[in-house]
Amino acid sequence: MNGLSHYLSQISPLNNDAMIEAQLRLDSLAKPPGSLGRLEEIAVTLAGISGKMYYDTSKRCVIIMSSDNGVVDEGVASAPQAVTYLQTVNFAKGVTGVDALAKLFGTDLIVVDVGINAEVDYPHIKNKKIRKSTWNIASKEAMTHDEARQAILVGVTTAIEAVKNGYALLGAGEMGIGNTTTSSAVLCALTGIPVEQATGKGAGLKEEAYMKKIDVIRTALANYRPDPSDPVDVLAKVGGFDIAAMAGVFIGGAYMKAPVVIDGFISIVAALVASRLCPAAKDYMIASHSSFEQGFTHAARELGVEPYLHLNMRLGEGSGCPLMFAVIDAACAIIRDMGTFEQACIDNEYLDEIKDGDNFTV
Amino acid sequence: MNGLSHYLSQISPLNNDAMIEAQLRLDSLAKPPGSLGRLEEIAVTLAGISGKMYYDTSKRCVIIMSSDNGVVDEGVASAPQAVTYLQTVNFAKGVTGVDALAKLFGTDLIVVDVGINAEVDYPHIKNKKIRKSTWNIASKEAMTHDEARQAILVGVTTAIEAVKNGYALLGAGEMGIGNTTTSSAVLCALTGIPVEQATGKGAGLKEEAYMKKIDVIRTALANYRPDPSDPVDVLAKVGGFDIAAMAGVFIGGAYMKAPVVIDGFISIVAALVASRLCPAAKDYMIASHSSFEQGFTHAARELGVEPYLHLNMRLGEGSGCPLMFAVIDAACAIIRDMGTFEQACIDNEYLDEIKDGDNFTV
Repeated sequence: MNGLSHYLSQISPLNNDAMIEAQLRLDSLAKPPGSLGRLEEIAVTLAGISGKMYYDTSKRCVIIMSSDNGVVDEGVASAPQAVTYLQTVNFAKGVTGVDALAKLFGTDLIVVDVGINAEVDYPHIKNKKIRKSTWNIASKEAMTHDEARQAILVGVTTAIEAVKNGYALLGAGEMGIGNTTTSSAVLCALTGIPVEQATGKGAGLKEEAYMKKIDVIRTALANYRPDPSDPVDVLAKVGGFDIAAMAGVFIGGAYMKAPVVIDGFISIVAALVASRLCPAAKDYMIASHSSFEQGFTHAARELGVEPYLHLNMRLGEGSGCPLMFAVIDAACAIIRDMGTFEQACIDNEYLDEIKDGDNFTV
Repeated sequence: MNGLSHYLSQISPLNNDAMIEAQLRLDSLAKPPGSLGRLEEIAVTLAGISGKMYYDTSKRCVIIMSSDNGVVDEGVASAPQAVTYLQTVNFAKGVTGVDALAKLFGTDLIVVDVGINAEVDYPHIKNKKIRKSTWNIASKEAMTHDEARQAILVGVTTAIEAVKNGYALLGAGEMGIGNTTTSSAVLCALTGIPVEQATGKGAGLKEEAYMKKIDVIRTALANYRPDPSDPVDVLAKVGGFDIAAMAGVFIGGAYMKAPVVIDGFISIVAALVASRLCPAAKDYMIASHSSFEQGFTHAARELGVEPYLHLNMRLGEGSGCPLMFAVIDAACAIIRDMGTFEQACIDNEYLDEIKDGDNFTV
C-alpha cells in the first residue's frame, strides 16, 4: 500500500487547455457573456478537473465518515455518544436526512466506520475502524501521529475506490457526536483564529456547555501546542478520525481527478486540512452551502471558497452535498444543452453587438 | 371575465393549522430541531399555501412573459430589440438557458407574448399581446392604465389556467430587451430609492449607455410622478407589459393557492408590484437566487425575502426557477421521507436529551 506522501505528490493542477475550451464554448452560447455566473465557473472547473468539456455527473455518492470523540466526556455535545452509532446504522437503513436528499438527487451513500465507539456489524457499513473513539482531548492528545495518517489513508483509499467504481462526483460527510468541538480546535490550530470565533453551539448546546466547549478547546491547544504547519500533528493532537478521513477523501478525489463537494463545518475543516497537506487539492473541491455553525465562515474564507446555497443548515451527515450535486448538474446541462448564438439564429450583426457588451465590473 | 379587484379580494392568508402540523412533523424527525434550516421553513410554507403536509411538486412550470419596451430607442439596452422575438421563439425551440435548466429539473415552459414588437406565429407561444411594445418612457408614459390592468390580468389568468391544468409550482420569468430599465424605474417609483442604486448594467451596458439609462429613468420619474401607492399607475407610467403580466402571475398563483417562485431582478420587481396590490400575495412567493443586477438586493429587502442560491446569475428568462424547484423538492423530500426519532430507534432517554437542546439564538 502506498503512503500518504505518494498520493500528495501525484495531485496535479487543473487542465488549463480544457478550461479554455470550456470557456470558449460557454461564450458561444446564446446568452450575454458570463450571464450564468457561477454556473459557468463550475462548468469550467469541471472541465479543468476532468479534462472533458462534458462531464457526466450521473453516478455520484456521499462518503460518510463515522467516528466517536473522547471529548464528549466533557459534556460538550448536545446528544449522547450512542447517537453516532445509531445514526450510522440509520444511514444504511435509509431513514436519515442525508438519505432523503440523496435519494431525491440520485446519490448513493458510502458509509464508513472509522472509529465508532461500538461493535458495528451492519450491512453496507464499511469497517475501517482505527480504534473505538479518540481519546478525550481534555486529558490526552486525540490520537497518535500514526493513527492520524492511517485515518487520512482510509479516506484516500475510499475515495479512490469510489472513483474506480464509476462515481464521478463525490461528497464528504460525517457523523460523530462531539465533532464540532474537534473541528473548531483544528480550525484554530491551523489558522490561529480565536477559539470563541471558531466555536458554535453544534447541534444545540446550552450556554454553560458552550462555555465549557470553548474552555476545553482553549486548554487543549495551550497544552499540546499543535504545529500549524503540520496538519498531521494538528489532527493527532486535537482532531478526530472523521475529520482525518474526510481530509483523505478530498486528497483521494483530487488524486483521481474527481470533484469533491464540501458539506458543512466539519467537512470544510477537513477540506482545509487537505489543502494544507497539498494546496493543489483545493482546485478539486467545490463548496456547497454555508453552514449555520459560526466557524464555517472563517474556514471558507481561509480556504478561499464561497458557498452557493444559503439554507442555514447545520445537520451534517453530508446532507448539503446532494443539493449541490443538483446545482452541478445544472452547470453541466448549461454547457451541454444550450444552443449557440448560431443555433439560436441570432444574426451575426446582433451577435457582435451583444458580444461587444462590457462585462460587469461591480 | 372577472376584474383585477375580484382576484385581489380572494387571496387568503396561509393555512395556519397546516403550518403547525408541518412544524410538528418536522420536529419529530430524527435530527436536531431546526437543523435543516430554511428547508424546514420552505416545507412549512408549502403546507401553509396548500393546506397539505405533503405537497407534490412534480408537475411545475415557468411562465415566461415576453414583451418589448419602447425605451430601447434611447440606447439603454446592450442587445437589439429583435432579440426579444428571437429568444421567445428559442424558448419554444428548446435551445435557451432556461430550456436547458427546465429540462434538467422536469419543468415545463409556458411562453406568452404579451407585447413583442413583431408578428409572432409560432407553436407553443400563447398570443396575449396587449400591443406591439410599450411607448418610449423618454417621451411618453409606457401604457394606459387600462393596458396595465389588462397586462396584469394576462398573468393572473395564465397562472390560474396553469394551476387548473395541474401545475403545482409556478415560476415567473421574462424576456424583454430593455426591461431592466423599466424594472429599475418601477422599483424607484414604488420605494423611493435613488435611481443609481436601483439601476445596474443589465446584460452588459457600457458606461456611457449606463449613464443614459439612469438619466432616462430619472427624467421619466420626474415628468410623470407615478403614485407609489398605486401600482397600476406606476406600471402604466414607467413599467412594461412583461412586469405587469408577471405581477399577475404572482397574483394568480396566490389566488389559486399555489407557490410562485421569483427569478431575478425583473421578476422580483414584479413580485413587489404584486405585494403592493395585495400584501397577502407575498406569502405565496418563494425567492430563488440573488441576481447580480444591483437593484435586486433593494427589491428583496423591500419585499422581505432572502434568496437561497448565490450564483451571480443575470440571465433572466426565469432561469433561476428550475434550480429553486430542486431546492423546493428537497424540502418536500425531507418532510415526507425522513424517519422520525422513533423510526430511527433513538431511545426516548436520548430523545429527551436531544430535544432539550437550546435552539440557536444567533
